[in-house]
Amino acid sequence: MSTDCFQIEARCGSARAGRLRTAHGDVETPVFMPVGTLATVKGVPQETLEELGVEILLANTYHLFLRPGTDTIRQLGGLHGFMSWERAILTDSGGYQVFSLSDLRKVREEGVEFRSHLDGALHFLSPETATAAQIALGADVIMAFDECTEYPTEHQHARQSMEMTARWAERCKKYFEEHRGEVPWGQVSSFKFQVSSSGARNSKLETGNSSQLLFGIVQGGMYADLRQESAGRTVEIGFPGYAIGGLSVGESRSLTREMVEATLPHLPQDQPRYLMGVGTPDEIVEYAALGIDMMDCVLPTRAARHGLLYTSEGKLAIKNARFAQDEGPVDPRCGCRVCARYSRAYLRHLYSSNESLAAVLNTIHNLAFYLDTMRRVRQSIKLRHLEALLSEVRSHSLNSSTQGEDPA
Amino acid sequence: MSTDCFQIEARCGSARAGRLRTAHGDVETPVFMPVGTLATVKGVPQETLEELGVEILLANTYHLFLRPGTDTIRQLGGLHGFMSWERAILTDSGGYQVFSLSDLRKVREEGVEFRSHLDGALHFLSPETATAAQIALGADVIMAFDECTEYPTEHQHARQSMEMTARWAERCKKYFEEHRGEVPWGQVSSFKFQVSSSGARNSKLETGNSSQLLFGIVQGGMYADLRQESAGRTVEIGFPGYAIGGLSVGESRSLTREMVEATLPHLPQDQPRYLMGVGTPDEIVEYAALGIDMMDCVLPTRAARHGLLYTSEGKLAIKNARFAQDEGPVDPRCGCRVCARYSRAYLRHLYSSNESLAAVLNTIHNLAFYLDTMRRVRQSIKLRHLEALLSEVRSHSLNSSTQGEDPA
Repeated sequence: MSTDCFQIEARCGSARAGRLRTAHGDVETPVFMPVGTLATVKGVPQETLEELGVEILLANTYHLFLRPGTDTIRQLGGLHGFMSWERAILTDSGGYQVFSLSDLRKVREEGVEFRSHLDGALHFLSPETATAAQIALGADVIMAFDECTEYPTEHQHARQSMEMTARWAERCKKYFEEHRGEVPWGQVSSFKFQVSSSGARNSKLETGNSSQLLFGIVQGGMYADLRQESAGRTVEIGFPGYAIGGLSVGESRSLTREMVEATLPHLPQDQPRYLMGVGTPDEIVEYAALGIDMMDCVLPTRAARHGLLYTSEGKLAIKNARFAQDEGPVDPRCGCRVCARYSRAYLRHLYSSNESLAAVLNTIHNLAFYLDTMRRVRQSIKLRHLEALLSEVRSHSLNSSTQGEDPA
Repeated sequence: MSTDCFQIEARCGSARAGRLRTAHGDVETPVFMPVGTLATVKGVPQETLEELGVEILLANTYHLFLRPGTDTIRQLGGLHGFMSWERAILTDSGGYQVFSLSDLRKVREEGVEFRSHLDGALHFLSPETATAAQIALGADVIMAFDECTEYPTEHQHARQSMEMTARWAERCKKYFEEHRGEVPWGQVSSFKFQVSSSGARNSKLETGNSSQLLFGIVQGGMYADLRQESAGRTVEIGFPGYAIGGLSVGESRSLTREMVEATLPHLPQDQPRYLMGVGTPDEIVEYAALGIDMMDCVLPTRAARHGLLYTSEGKLAIKNARFAQDEGPVDPRCGCRVCARYSRAYLRHLYSSNESLAAVLNTIHNLAFYLDTMRRVRQSIKLRHLEALLSEVRSHSLNSSTQGEDPA
């Protein structure tokens, strides 16, 4: 399956700078996608996300399936209408959350029966129902329903799991091909976006992508041979893009990298590659250098709520008493609206006083830092000096635990 | 004591539209002042408050005295520098909070010894220390330290309390006269504001008010004779403005109004009058009609956090299931950024899911509603048809409990 949804515009070593074309605008890659689990990036209004330059958001099918329900969202125009966000959205399939959040799950070939983490109610997700849910939500990029192999796992079990994920991927694609026309937005609503908002830069009328894009997911646990086989089988099924899933589940950083390196050669050069659930600021630069085009992680937003701020000089725990009278900005090299206006002393006061504005401002800053990092990555690829940026983030990474503690 | 801090520009019956001139800009009156207890209006960035047209904020001396401490704030440039807010600020004296929040207080002629509600630590506030704290905080309008008479109270005790408040007012004024030069901002910082920010509309260089303004407070419990006597004694001491305190402490709405009506004739016609802790949207219109120039209340911000929204058609409890699929805005007649972008269905989802964006957006809407109400009051006074607005809010007031419940 081939589409023109992705164009590579520059290369630097293995890294690529490109453009993912969606029905709700182009997304410049490599891109970091902020996580908006329940159709909201916690504490941050959509207009602020636009101001930050966010071109694509991630939302979680599992959470929205339970609350408020995918049918409700479909009736309100899909996620774009529901949350009033005219730019691109990606939804995960719910696979990861079923395995990490729900109780009493029973995995069968048909699908997964599980109990809601909210009220214990019994639910069922399968390749077909997860794809149907994602068509109802109407995200621009949707993901195949996979089994996220637990860590650590024996080779034999990892193989069985990977093989089931491959069979599920085929069922997802079949269901998607039969039902892709049922997406809640169509020609008309996309056209409306184009004329109603100066913020919507590229409508599908320009890009030619009037459909959702279904991506496949590579699994295989921590076994390079299984990763390679999974990549081969997933590519054989054929998707417009491929994700590497089942990583960042408790293994070491070096093992994550090993698995990514084992997978990448087996993915098509000209299609987008999405590394799920990664990572720290230095990791997103490192993986972009390896040729990853898309990443997402709760780290910048969750850390912000715990008072942990990312800066050009490493991490900073704002609750630290040393900031009580510090009139400087969080990061003198950051141009975000938080650094432009508020002092470390004020942010420390908000955090120490348990004020809700602390999470709001901290989240805005951390997202600005991540998005700015990715902007620099894209710039460096285009100017072919990504090595300089890599050296810079590697040196900061060494200092990164001096001012705070990691909440992850 | 007379200053040119207040100019009345129009009258309609007893109501007045005017202008309070402060070192940090003019404030159009009648004005509703949002409450920013700990130097933050919970969840709302200062730039959003500016966008809403907030010209003056209230902060609480008691809370800031305990955390982060008034000396810390002085060293960071006073409240304006600390919270990065270049417009006007009013601080209460801490009197009300000492009586409502702290434990084990001992009231003596000298002042009040009390234990912090945070950690039980022993503190002391007196007319002198409360005034010193407010000079350190550097708000544009500061309040005399008063005893907030508890309700209900015998006439004799209310008299004793009122008399002590009057003696305290004299001490506050004396201390203020001797120390007013110690405010953390001066000619220089105010000038800096003028040149550094396009948002600072009126610097003190224009207004001629380079000093803080100390207001007196009328007490007297629920006794009209004591209110009258308190007003007389406070006016005799002489302040640039007068507050009516000790109301909205549990008495009926009609009794509050009775006390306000008993007090107003005894306050100077040409000076600002501030009714503390009031009120609902219809009350702020009613009291403006009686000749009140300034009001503050936690209601719009606190109610927002409980999912209670004020609209042109009455109150609305957003958690109600009837809004689950409601694509309309909170208030079709409201032009705020929340009503312009988000549906009731989305706001209900945020609130039901306990998402922090719920409080942020609800607070922005409620503040917009209150500020817009006051804008209409000022307009109506200038056009001399305040009666029409009064009839309108009275009819909505009758319907106001149909869609929600009051969290107050």
